[in-house]
Amino acid sequence: MTDFDYWSPTYIAFGKDKESRTGELVRRFGGRKALMIYGGGSAVRSGLIGRVEASLSKAGVGFIKLGGVKPNPRSSLVEEGVRLALSEKVDFMLAVGGGSVIDTAKAIAIGAANGGEWRRFYVGKEVKVRPAIPAALPVGVVLTIAAAGSEGSTNSIINLEPENLKRGAGGDILRPKFAVLNPELTMSLPPFQTACGLADMFAHLCERYFTPTADVTLSDNLCEAVMRTVVDESAKIMANPTDYQARANVMWAGTLAHNDICGAGRVQDWASHGIEHELSALYDCAHGAGLAVVMPAWMTYVHDANDARFARFARNVFGVGQGEPDAAAALAGIRAFRRWLKSLGLPLTFAELGAKEEDIPTLLRTLNLSGNTLGGFKPLAEKDVEAIYRLCLNSDGPY
Amino acid sequence: MTDFDYWSPTYIAFGKDKESRTGELVRRFGGRKALMIYGGGSAVRSGLIGRVEASLSKAGVGFIKLGGVKPNPRSSLVEEGVRLALSEKVDFMLAVGGGSVIDTAKAIAIGAANGGEWRRFYVGKEVKVRPAIPAALPVGVVLTIAAAGSEGSTNSIINLEPENLKRGAGGDILRPKFAVLNPELTMSLPPFQTACGLADMFAHLCERYFTPTADVTLSDNLCEAVMRTVVDESAKIMANPTDYQARANVMWAGTLAHNDICGAGRVQDWASHGIEHELSALYDCAHGAGLAVVMPAWMTYVHDANDARFARFARNVFGVGQGEPDAAAALAGIRAFRRWLKSLGLPLTFAELGAKEEDIPTLLRTLNLSGNTLGGFKPLAEKDVEAIYRLCLNSDGPY
Repeated sequence: MTDFDYWSPTYIAFGKDKESRTGELVRRFGGRKALMIYGGGSAVRSGLIGRVEASLSKAGVGFIKLGGVKPNPRSSLVEEGVRLALSEKVDFMLAVGGGSVIDTAKAIAIGAANGGEWRRFYVGKEVKVRPAIPAALPVGVVLTIAAAGSEGSTNSIINLEPENLKRGAGGDILRPKFAVLNPELTMSLPPFQTACGLADMFAHLCERYFTPTADVTLSDNLCEAVMRTVVDESAKIMANPTDYQARANVMWAGTLAHNDICGAGRVQDWASHGIEHELSALYDCAHGAGLAVVMPAWMTYVHDANDARFARFARNVFGVGQGEPDAAAALAGIRAFRRWLKSLGLPLTFAELGAKEEDIPTLLRTLNLSGNTLGGFKPLAEKDVEAIYRLCLNSDGPY
Repeated sequence: MTDFDYWSPTYIAFGKDKESRTGELVRRFGGRKALMIYGGGSAVRSGLIGRVEASLSKAGVGFIKLGGVKPNPRSSLVEEGVRLALSEKVDFMLAVGGGSVIDTAKAIAIGAANGGEWRRFYVGKEVKVRPAIPAALPVGVVLTIAAAGSEGSTNSIINLEPENLKRGAGGDILRPKFAVLNPELTMSLPPFQTACGLADMFAHLCERYFTPTADVTLSDNLCEAVMRTVVDESAKIMANPTDYQARANVMWAGTLAHNDICGAGRVQDWASHGIEHELSALYDCAHGAGLAVVMPAWMTYVHDANDARFARFARNVFGVGQGEPDAAAALAGIRAFRRWLKSLGLPLTFAELGAKEEDIPTLLRTLNLSGNTLGGFKPLAEKDVEAIYRLCLNSDGPY
């Protein structure tokens, strides 16, 4: 176990109808005038936005609204939000939506607290140390999809226009003050979006699980506990999208997959996320779908750096590879992982995702490793990343 | 899964020498003048108190000190601390020690912020709703034993004199602002104290695990993950008390066992704690030792309320009872649990603890159920508690 600092102060209000407490929670964390950020029409049509507005009004919280956040959230909307937040002098950012909405609210929170500056805090893989964010407005969340974990995380990812670069900012200052988690809000999600969310949260666990750090019994056990939950409950949700209890377990799992309770004290990987972000930036595909393509390819490429760890993953998460040698069990685990992704209806190859072999040079250019390596489990140079992109062309899985 | 609120804002600084950051952390959370609470001489002799003092001075934090906290912490020292905190106008409570020291600091934190009033917030099993604590000074912790979990919990337990009643206060306001966890500080603990700590943290997990709530896949998996960690790492510590990595995993497990990450969304039990507190109040025995006697007896008495849950415990935590019917597996699990406690050198009976059969009426009187029941897994009336105390007389374990 490595030394670590851990701080996860997000207040969780979990259960049916908890969005009715939004106003009370904004006030508890000091908000008097909020900028509410949301996405498309479904949050409006479902009545959710109206219920949140009523809660804010009841608590005496003033608010303005900015909708239109798209998946792979764009910098142009952040710019608009920063101008609005500054001119309207809001003191709180309220995100009503999923990861893209929350990440947009976090970016605006930075800009509004730093005289409009936010973009310089968003950097790529070529930067080893992220710039410290000196200030940010407090952020609260009403979550509508179990996926990104941004409701409890330190991170925000924005698609920087016009270059179309997906870049991230991070720091404890970006941890939301509160998150309202009502599993009922996730019941009407289309199966593909639900599946993308499951892949995303599972990937957040993998990025922490596949570590070079030894003697991490506790966080190994925690990672496997949450992974098994996601796999077991996913089958229930796919069979019955309105299974409240399965939705509830998965919603809470999505938060714990990314608030770093499963990553404390271990070197983490994050290569797959870096590799995937170039795909969703270029093709505007769903991040979870991109991860479903990239992660098994990454596993196939790196597993022999520590087959024992991959064998443990196989046995403890998917219940395969028992009694087999580690190298065989490792491959059995990757196959089981791919089968699970396929059972969710997710793409497994570039072709299924809509990505193109001839774009690989472009992906490597925008990834911009600049001679640095990517990932903590097995550091990857550009040629390794290229090999992983090429594995994504192959529909056969581990070889 | 039930609805829940969850808020665990304690900042964790984990690793070797992290006590050197105490001053920085007190300042971060607003402290300018601290009252440092500690126990006996070992923290002084080891040089820990000196290192913490140096850190406070370096950060420009003023401080005064109050030592002498005993296990099963006494109200008289709380009274002294409250008078000192008020007269010296401290704005921060710093606990350097284990559960008793932290609980004393929390009690003083209440008294100092409420004009000296603290005792009325400490109540027993006869009170169903704890009084809300209107204010408390911020508390920080430098932990020296992995056990009580008070470094991340909402609770404080004090032995109220002169009646010798062990009573508790609780509320999010008592969550420490920070906890310094340096596993090296726990390496010199005598084996019996180490064992008592292991029993205590395991009991905190059992109190959450044994629930009547259905569909709690995630927190079931989390409870089992932490339980397995405690059992597996305990053998390493018993074999080699200076195994840093085993001490590190157990120290972090002790915090996660009681910050409620493993209990969110489920009705909890807490009968064993209630039953044990009367033992440590009357005999001044170690809480963990009392739990080692009470918990298997409680399990033996209640398991048939849900043998499937006890069978799962047997199979997933102790790896016994595979392929057996649930009722048989349940007993196998209780036996394995007892064997584990015995392997740690803990008492298993009243006689081994130094408790007496003839005191059972006294224990029931001070427990003072007043017609209420105890516990969430299987509500216990006074006659049930009496039966459990009587099971503690028997050295044969489950029958």
